[in-house]
Amino acid sequence: MSVYLKDIPLPEAKTRLEIAIKSSGKWGILGEEVIALDEKACGRVLSEPVWAKISSPHYHSSAMDGFAIRTMDTLHAMQNSPVLLTIQSAAGEERTEYVDTGDPLPEWADAVIPIEFTEPVDDQGQIASNPRCPFAIRIRAAVSPWSNVRVMGEDIVATQLVLPKGHILRPVDLGAIAASGNDTVKVAKQPKVAVLPTGSELVPVGQPVSAGEIIEFNSLVLAAQVNDWGGKASRFSITTDDFETIRKRVAQAALEHDLILLNAGSSAGSEDFSARVVESLGSVLVHGIAVRPGHPVILGMLRMKAVYDCLNVEYHTELPDIPIIGVPGFPVSATLTGEIFVEPLMALWLGRKDFSPIEVSARITRKITSPPGDDDYLRVVVGRVRDQLLAAPLSRGSGVITSLVQADGIVILPRGIQGLPAGSEIRVRLYKSQSEIDRTIFAIGSHDMILDILGQSLVQHNRRLSSANVGSQAGLVALSRGEAHLSGSHLLDPETGEYNIKYIYQYLPGVPIKVVDFAVRQQGFLVLPDNPKSIHSLEDLSRPDVRYINRQRGAGTRVLLDYHLARSGIEPAQIQGYNQEEFTHLAVAAAVSSGRADCGLGIPAAAGALKLDFVPLYSEKYQLVIPEEFYGAEILQPLLKLLTDRAFQGAVGKLPGYDVSSMGKIAAELSGVGEV
Amino acid sequence: MSVYLKDIPLPEAKTRLEIAIKSSGKWGILGEEVIALDEKACGRVLSEPVWAKISSPHYHSSAMDGFAIRTMDTLHAMQNSPVLLTIQSAAGEERTEYVDTGDPLPEWADAVIPIEFTEPVDDQGQIASNPRCPFAIRIRAAVSPWSNVRVMGEDIVATQLVLPKGHILRPVDLGAIAASGNDTVKVAKQPKVAVLPTGSELVPVGQPVSAGEIIEFNSLVLAAQVNDWGGKASRFSITTDDFETIRKRVAQAALEHDLILLNAGSSAGSEDFSARVVESLGSVLVHGIAVRPGHPVILGMLRMKAVYDCLNVEYHTELPDIPIIGVPGFPVSATLTGEIFVEPLMALWLGRKDFSPIEVSARITRKITSPPGDDDYLRVVVGRVRDQLLAAPLSRGSGVITSLVQADGIVILPRGIQGLPAGSEIRVRLYKSQSEIDRTIFAIGSHDMILDILGQSLVQHNRRLSSANVGSQAGLVALSRGEAHLSGSHLLDPETGEYNIKYIYQYLPGVPIKVVDFAVRQQGFLVLPDNPKSIHSLEDLSRPDVRYINRQRGAGTRVLLDYHLARSGIEPAQIQGYNQEEFTHLAVAAAVSSGRADCGLGIPAAAGALKLDFVPLYSEKYQLVIPEEFYGAEILQPLLKLLTDRAFQGAVGKLPGYDVSSMGKIAAELSGVGEV
Repeated sequence: MSVYLKDIPLPEAKTRLEIAIKSSGKWGILGEEVIALDEKACGRVLSEPVWAKISSPHYHSSAMDGFAIRTMDTLHAMQNSPVLLTIQSAAGEERTEYVDTGDPLPEWADAVIPIEFTEPVDDQGQIASNPRCPFAIRIRAAVSPWSNVRVMGEDIVATQLVLPKGHILRPVDLGAIAASGNDTVKVAKQPKVAVLPTGSELVPVGQPVSAGEIIEFNSLVLAAQVNDWGGKASRFSITTDDFETIRKRVAQAALEHDLILLNAGSSAGSEDFSARVVESLGSVLVHGIAVRPGHPVILGMLRMKAVYDCLNVEYHTELPDIPIIGVPGFPVSATLTGEIFVEPLMALWLGRKDFSPIEVSARITRKITSPPGDDDYLRVVVGRVRDQLLAAPLSRGSGVITSLVQADGIVILPRGIQGLPAGSEIRVRLYKSQSEIDRTIFAIGSHDMILDILGQSLVQHNRRLSSANVGSQAGLVALSRGEAHLSGSHLLDPETGEYNIKYIYQYLPGVPIKVVDFAVRQQGFLVLPDNPKSIHSLEDLSRPDVRYINRQRGAGTRVLLDYHLARSGIEPAQIQGYNQEEFTHLAVAAAVSSGRADCGLGIPAAAGALKLDFVPLYSEKYQLVIPEEFYGAEILQPLLKLLTDRAFQGAVGKLPGYDVSSMGKIAAELSGVGEV
Repeated sequence: MSVYLKDIPLPEAKTRLEIAIKSSGKWGILGEEVIALDEKACGRVLSEPVWAKISSPHYHSSAMDGFAIRTMDTLHAMQNSPVLLTIQSAAGEERTEYVDTGDPLPEWADAVIPIEFTEPVDDQGQIASNPRCPFAIRIRAAVSPWSNVRVMGEDIVATQLVLPKGHILRPVDLGAIAASGNDTVKVAKQPKVAVLPTGSELVPVGQPVSAGEIIEFNSLVLAAQVNDWGGKASRFSITTDDFETIRKRVAQAALEHDLILLNAGSSAGSEDFSARVVESLGSVLVHGIAVRPGHPVILGMLRMKAVYDCLNVEYHTELPDIPIIGVPGFPVSATLTGEIFVEPLMALWLGRKDFSPIEVSARITRKITSPPGDDDYLRVVVGRVRDQLLAAPLSRGSGVITSLVQADGIVILPRGIQGLPAGSEIRVRLYKSQSEIDRTIFAIGSHDMILDILGQSLVQHNRRLSSANVGSQAGLVALSRGEAHLSGSHLLDPETGEYNIKYIYQYLPGVPIKVVDFAVRQQGFLVLPDNPKSIHSLEDLSRPDVRYINRQRGAGTRVLLDYHLARSGIEPAQIQGYNQEEFTHLAVAAAVSSGRADCGLGIPAAAGALKLDFVPLYSEKYQLVIPEEFYGAEILQPLLKLLTDRAFQGAVGKLPGYDVSSMGKIAAELSGVGEV
């Protein structure tokens, strides 16, 4: 099938690109420019070292408001026999002169006495009315040479190295460069990068989309990445899938750019022209890289002779080849391709180091499997529980852009590794600073929309809520393994009608726990508007025309369903779709809204979110299960405070189907003693 | 003396400003604006949450190039009895249809089979010539529902929270916002900050300066800081020290800005008008803060009525007061004032969190003393030696801008602490990432200019050289305490004429060490051009008209001097200036160049740097002393490689007075055994 696609290991792909760029003569900065030393110079990269043209200070300068003196004259000054220095004396005699901070030291002087350590007097020996314009000063202690003087070159000596080549300019650097007598800097030219989105299915941001159409935002992300990395991106408008049109636009872009990112069409589908376009204007070095996500990457070089020919422009001088990257269409793959190939190119062309991220060790919270033939890039949320950094894998779908938004870092599982068991030690490249990670509250368990509201409110209180939705039971298990600070749970005990306690005894034996009320919420059927199939009771689920969408095993909502099915004597096998599982209320709502199913059990907020109808059936307690050790810890205090905050309670209470009257109350305290 | 200056503790100063800004009604974002979703939106701060307007995908979408099918039709497919699905069948029968990745799933279908798992055939049952346009496909395994389909809402469900308020937009966020059907974002308005440099002694960057004049660059640093923090700075031209002129310009700036930074004039010197100007247009809240460096900070509020009156403009509506900060003139104080007061204001007005830096624990390498009444901000270089983070204090002068450039972080010693002994555990707020810190080679010992060249070259090899100049002996002592990876040393043993070995036995007993040759260099007198005082030999130093400038005790150059003085029978007391000590060759050269002294012992490069004459006297070995454990460690490999690199040797050899013929050779290996 794959005419072009033959997955090549990443290092081999990078080597091919490196060799091609080297032979084009573009292995290094693309040029230099001299720019004025103003605040816009920040972020630019020095293409040569900055040397000091003058010293700083460039003269002996008074470091205080005070009086310039010769230390020799003060040698015999003592508490009881002061020395008198006069303003009008000639140089070389017992002379003094008032100086402000920064004033040059008079030639005859070698020190400054701060004004507060002198006694300015008038010609009668009385305290001078204006202490800065006295007749003389009295001094009662010897002064050591050069005290309170910033001597010439104290900070910077002319000719010394101020900043090295390759340095990225920060605000303070501008000060040092100016202080050393420079008013311009020589910096690397910014690489010009063309971003060309192609695809007949693409629709620009802001226009309505219908099924089969895709909002074109990869060019936005790629351009913003390029600019972040120090390049200068130009976004082209969308080109439809037509070989000749794409070819012309690529040729046009090649005239004025250093790199071309041709987005999508890099696979081997019926409308994937990228490889053919590159082939027709130059050569394909690599098509398909053993990286997940990201496979269908194209690396190629455009020959300028072919580019000129394509545009019917006469070709005079020998021009170097220009690299082109065929970027995959799935947004996660596109972003990753930027990180893997474009960032290092920007670093090379700007003469700076790669932006190498911070790497930390963490334990993976879930078992992961990995295709053995690929370098596997896994996005994770990172948090600290006790003293252990934990990495929770996010969705692996290459289309799931929210996984990029939520990611705190990335884990690379190299080729040859087929997977890792839960709890394995892995290295994470952090996108965020460790202090942000340390502000993260790790919640795992049942999903409820009020967690989103809680998360949003916590942002204002210097905390970040990372919430993994695995269902109530799996949440308690994770808690027992020390993988979260708290767990949202609504597990009904069919025998007692009580929530959570029995399950906590089961999964967290011996652990001191506080159970805190969050909300009492309704559960019911989510159905299409006006309930076209008239689904009103559990019994309706066994009708042959009703397709159900279920929650995953271990979810509190699933337990609730099973409990009521058992009470009603309905067999799961009677329900169409009982084995179709979703992980969140919203996903169930989406399944109903899109027609994949006719109904599902869920919360009214999820129905409201997708304009579905809600058929109320049960009400249940949604509680937070918090181990004692975290309940008292600093990390959770802002969260606990919010639970009793009237404004926050009001915001949650406004959602349909929530009763917040007991929010924040401790429903149970389990001492953990004798429960094992 | 201090009419205005009464140092106020920092928290009290912050509280006063907070109360004043709250009562002006500006405690929160200054306004919102709707901006287009393009790459320029990066870095802006959301003023309201982004909610999903549409789901993503917004339709059931094929995740592969393949054939859409009904899973029901594949239930009985087996390896030996395939199922045949035809293109032309009616919906509801055994039908299939080719789909590209991203194509909408036909209404009748509920799964996709990737093309490589099908057998496309023609109407004769032969393999189809075009696999994408077959007559039918054969399938040999059952397919589970919704496989290879990106179901509607898989990534984002309409109405869900995409990003919270206060979030700073990154490239990937733009993608998520677009994917959720938004084409604009509501962001906080950028605070407008006026930066007004004042002072008759100031000269704009790029103009020649004479003694007593100062290059004005604080406004450059402050403006760049403000922009970095998300504000919008406007730099005003320099205003001379005239009360009325400054007052008018402040009033003008107040009309169009949210914050005014009035640079310098904030002290209590004879030309320090800032406090009076603030008083005349509003009120001074604080003058003088117990922070070192930074003392003479002014915090005030401008009343708009007074501003309008000053400009002779009619005042109609009630306008809120505007904060003004009188920023001290010394560059380190100015920068720190920005960090302490301006950054939190920007965070407040943008509705984002403070940029709280990463904090780490480290051991301080030197004893520090601290004024007990101040919060003391100490800039440090940070590096890792063995598993210990070390913080080496930089110059404390408030005028020393290079200390800001070199700083890796800042240590805050709170009021009440008078100092800390060397080796104390302290907290460092890092300016740099920990991975940058971990690339740092810590050198401590004797200063030589070739260390600067080494440092510059190492930048290209992913290492950073942090070099503390304490002299050869102190360097060996620091090495013995595990405070550096290596030490540059040129300690002559007067008895044997040998270098370093005896001292290593003394200071590093029992430690396995490699001594590596760096260069043989000349030492001699640095004198003014044409040697006006005819200083040619050691004996000339005792002449009454010759003022000497010495190196500090423990410096190799000092040892060299003392050795030859002893041999010549010259008493230190005979030499004027013997007790005047400098810490580097360049500082000695600067002392001679500025006329503070007539001569000093040093290296020819230092003479060349300041266009001094050099009187050659001795030649000596400058070696690197490297403990075995670091010699083999990864951190030092790029440095060791450079020492044998011809190009690097060439660069050093070009300097006057250096012989590099043995550079990189191991001069001695001390096993450390039996030497104690």
